[in-house]
Amino acid sequence: MTQQKPSGMPFERYRPFPPIELPDRTWPSKVITEAPRWLSTDLRDGNQALIDPMSPARKMKMFELLVKMGYKEIEVGFPSASETDFSFVRQLIEGDHIPDDVTISVLTQAREDLIERSVQSLVGVPRANIHLYNALAPLFRRVVFHAGKDEIKDIATRGTELVMKHGENHLDMTVIGYEYSPEIFTSTELPFSLEVCEAVSDVWQPEDGREIILNLPATIESATPNVYADQIEWFSRQLTRRENTVISLHPHNDRGTAVAATELAMMAGADRVEGCLFGHGERTGNVDLVTLAMNLFSQGIDPMIDVSDIDEVRRTVEYCTQLPVHPRHPYAGDLVYTAFSGSHQDAIKKGLEDLDRQAAEQGVPVGTLPWEAPYLPIDPKDVGRTYEAVIRVNSQSGKGGVAYILKAEHKLDLPRRAQIEFSRVIQERTDTEGGEMTPEAIWDVFSSEYLDREAPLKLNSVHTSSAAGQKDALDVNVYVDGAIQSLHGEGNGPIAAFVNAINELPHGWDVRVLDYAEHALSAGGDALAAAYVECLVRDQVYWGVGVDANIVTASLKAVISAVNRAPAAT
Amino acid sequence: MTQQKPSGMPFERYRPFPPIELPDRTWPSKVITEAPRWLSTDLRDGNQALIDPMSPARKMKMFELLVKMGYKEIEVGFPSASETDFSFVRQLIEGDHIPDDVTISVLTQAREDLIERSVQSLVGVPRANIHLYNALAPLFRRVVFHAGKDEIKDIATRGTELVMKHGENHLDMTVIGYEYSPEIFTSTELPFSLEVCEAVSDVWQPEDGREIILNLPATIESATPNVYADQIEWFSRQLTRRENTVISLHPHNDRGTAVAATELAMMAGADRVEGCLFGHGERTGNVDLVTLAMNLFSQGIDPMIDVSDIDEVRRTVEYCTQLPVHPRHPYAGDLVYTAFSGSHQDAIKKGLEDLDRQAAEQGVPVGTLPWEAPYLPIDPKDVGRTYEAVIRVNSQSGKGGVAYILKAEHKLDLPRRAQIEFSRVIQERTDTEGGEMTPEAIWDVFSSEYLDREAPLKLNSVHTSSAAGQKDALDVNVYVDGAIQSLHGEGNGPIAAFVNAINELPHGWDVRVLDYAEHALSAGGDALAAAYVECLVRDQVYWGVGVDANIVTASLKAVISAVNRAPAAT
Repeated sequence: MTQQKPSGMPFERYRPFPPIELPDRTWPSKVITEAPRWLSTDLRDGNQALIDPMSPARKMKMFELLVKMGYKEIEVGFPSASETDFSFVRQLIEGDHIPDDVTISVLTQAREDLIERSVQSLVGVPRANIHLYNALAPLFRRVVFHAGKDEIKDIATRGTELVMKHGENHLDMTVIGYEYSPEIFTSTELPFSLEVCEAVSDVWQPEDGREIILNLPATIESATPNVYADQIEWFSRQLTRRENTVISLHPHNDRGTAVAATELAMMAGADRVEGCLFGHGERTGNVDLVTLAMNLFSQGIDPMIDVSDIDEVRRTVEYCTQLPVHPRHPYAGDLVYTAFSGSHQDAIKKGLEDLDRQAAEQGVPVGTLPWEAPYLPIDPKDVGRTYEAVIRVNSQSGKGGVAYILKAEHKLDLPRRAQIEFSRVIQERTDTEGGEMTPEAIWDVFSSEYLDREAPLKLNSVHTSSAAGQKDALDVNVYVDGAIQSLHGEGNGPIAAFVNAINELPHGWDVRVLDYAEHALSAGGDALAAAYVECLVRDQVYWGVGVDANIVTASLKAVISAVNRAPAAT
Repeated sequence: MTQQKPSGMPFERYRPFPPIELPDRTWPSKVITEAPRWLSTDLRDGNQALIDPMSPARKMKMFELLVKMGYKEIEVGFPSASETDFSFVRQLIEGDHIPDDVTISVLTQAREDLIERSVQSLVGVPRANIHLYNALAPLFRRVVFHAGKDEIKDIATRGTELVMKHGENHLDMTVIGYEYSPEIFTSTELPFSLEVCEAVSDVWQPEDGREIILNLPATIESATPNVYADQIEWFSRQLTRRENTVISLHPHNDRGTAVAATELAMMAGADRVEGCLFGHGERTGNVDLVTLAMNLFSQGIDPMIDVSDIDEVRRTVEYCTQLPVHPRHPYAGDLVYTAFSGSHQDAIKKGLEDLDRQAAEQGVPVGTLPWEAPYLPIDPKDVGRTYEAVIRVNSQSGKGGVAYILKAEHKLDLPRRAQIEFSRVIQERTDTEGGEMTPEAIWDVFSSEYLDREAPLKLNSVHTSSAAGQKDALDVNVYVDGAIQSLHGEGNGPIAAFVNAINELPHGWDVRVLDYAEHALSAGGDALAAAYVECLVRDQVYWGVGVDANIVTASLKAVISAVNRAPAAT
């Protein structure tokens, strides 16, 4: 082993995070035994950090998802900072969208006009939390606010008074709860955070039936996760009125350890966790609520949140945020229940067989047995997924799956839904014929399924015309059931024109195009193009694939491929 | 606050991970002060879990990247399990690609034929590590191997003997190092792992100058990260010959806490870390080496790995793995140095101004000052990035950036490089004109930049012909510098034919198409299509955008858009 070398990077510019003096910490010996109180801030911290913030329709979809999953505390916006947020809160209240057992909350800065505006957004709601924050951290005091500790503390206590005053003035029908966040708790002197929080509590006067939520944000994650746990344990021990205080976590993921920091801080005594589904939020995101819930689940703890259809959760979040969930995202990614390696596949197979055997012996359904299988931390079925063994192509070409062959050897980059469709085709073959498939065999199946079908339709030639201001026209020569025919179609572009033309044929296909994608098979305008078209043919979805140097011909071939795959009408 | 409700999920099927009895653990009071020894397993564990495993060319690119970044230990494959891995190891050795200060390693199971084959792959290399593993975990003993503890231990010791025997027989020119992994260390009884590891060490006989690497994998992450640290501290304390043993970590990320588990286990005494760049590897992946290195860097510790051009690292890894790095991935994602919120932007601006002021006062470059800025855990410039304040469009439409307007209001989903190009265009306008831009102003800039230019080229009409077996032909009527002309081109498809045609014009554009993408603006074959074409025009890259119901017309308009954006030849 030879020595590693200095990187040459300017690491001297950075200072280590000072450790917390807490030699008698107790959290390292603790174990989490129940779910915390959850707050989703998908509609606030999550939404504010989207390239494409949610439209009112997407916000409502997210709100409905959160309610359906079982979140009882939902931060719905920052109404004093954004007119759209204000309108959305009004829409929720006036449209009676908030179930009786759900408490919404709104975030506000400590200025009086902003507090008043926030309170006004809540008129008419039976219960709500108002969440006030101000920055306490030394860097903010010095460079942003040019203010001393006393001024900063006054902002917090005065803000709390103003929440109470305007709440009383405007919200006589509402049970108001209160949440206070000392901003960047993690980089603020602990005694100062405590002092401000105690002063805020002095104003709010928590007592039995009147809790205060003290939310301690790791607005930027800047230390190993044990440090956050130390900070929380220190704070929780020092705090007075602990029994009427809810200690809440609000971790971000700058160092990739937000889930860990949350779990250790729960062990250290926190009661409540704020985060977002799949970890959206400013920069690297807030802590991921789905991973936290599933981590509890996998330890035999009821997460109090329903993730039994994780793909539905994911689809909705992807739709609302317009950002993808990564293929390796814990519990939800495309690849996380997949085994590529032959030895993993073999071990999983034996583990699943053992569970089947146990179930048979005990005469119980396999789903009721304690889960135990190699390389699968949970039963994928518990979140509506399945275990996916990716076919080993052969030992010569290395390991991999169907996508490997199509991409590596044929440059075809199938859209994900098309991949899934094709893998089912392959699965049917291997189920009937058994054994491993060679790359050649996989390609043969792909070609015969998508590329080589020549009946009932086969394309012969294509002529298109389009001119500024005129409708696009398409003339094609097509073999229909073996006999050549000239078809003419019009539409917005060749695919539409072609679909219109073939829907006139007596076959009754009733084709509708749901999606299409096209890509070059290599760089350059001269390259072959591959087109993928998802068609509804008589109420059944089929993908079609076409390859041609001409992008039009490729698309039309893809439509034909889908139509030819559909069974004939009976 | 109302009560959370039971989820109805079958959490009773799962058992909590049993805690480790270690009340005198010391790691929670420790602080990391130096980089561990790193091993990259991108070419082994990373590669085996790719949908599209690396071709030899991509493997070589990955190897070169790892060397360039400063990795001195690189696991290059599993040569006994894969012919491609075997050939790649031979290629590295015979092509003399391994620098003097880099040690490669190969993984093998404990069967004699596999060990011999692995050893044979290494013939001629000056130094290498052989990495042997076998499964010790109770579940594997019971359901996979049907073997007792003694048999399992014998596999490990016998395997070690065989590595030594075949090493002596085949590798007389090679200094052989040895790494042993008790598989799924984390779910194996600690005393049994220790017993097997001690027995393996009895065979290998480590001494000064002859280390043994004991690699303790969390092959599946199945507990909170403190548990791994407890396990490592327990093991490290009990182990004999500690001074000649390298304790190595190999964490996976099933619970999303692999980075944390690694950091806590380093505090607990581990010397070495195995992982992959950006966390590739089976299922949720191995621990992410980039995040670990940058976490050290941000604490003032030399990571001993050069990440000063993180985008270059990311591009190469994305190319090699054919998988994306998520926009919120710590340190490397597209969004992690971006501030969307106005108050964040304001605080960052003040922080950066304060640094400038300090630098001016002290008469030093700003890059030499200790880093301290709100909401930015590191100076983005230290990894070759920049801080990006996303333009707040206006308070009515909510927060967001340029992409928001184009996507939300115009359904245009620009490829990332096109987004970057356009954001520079916008930046130039705001820099000259100041202030916020309304959505309308952004759309005006976009239209005038990409969609509305009508000189020197403007499309009038398009006729294409393609027939099976014939070359594609294109006839277009185009205004060239205001005068209509008929152009004819041939090529593989209309884009190629069109580029060929306009390259004949006397303007000397010399257009080459680098990339294109096209998407429907809504569902249905009738929808408008948007085409994006990246063109090289006289050695300068320009994106062009075309929108039309006809996919051909849209593409040709996009080419024209790019050409019209290029300045005239001088």
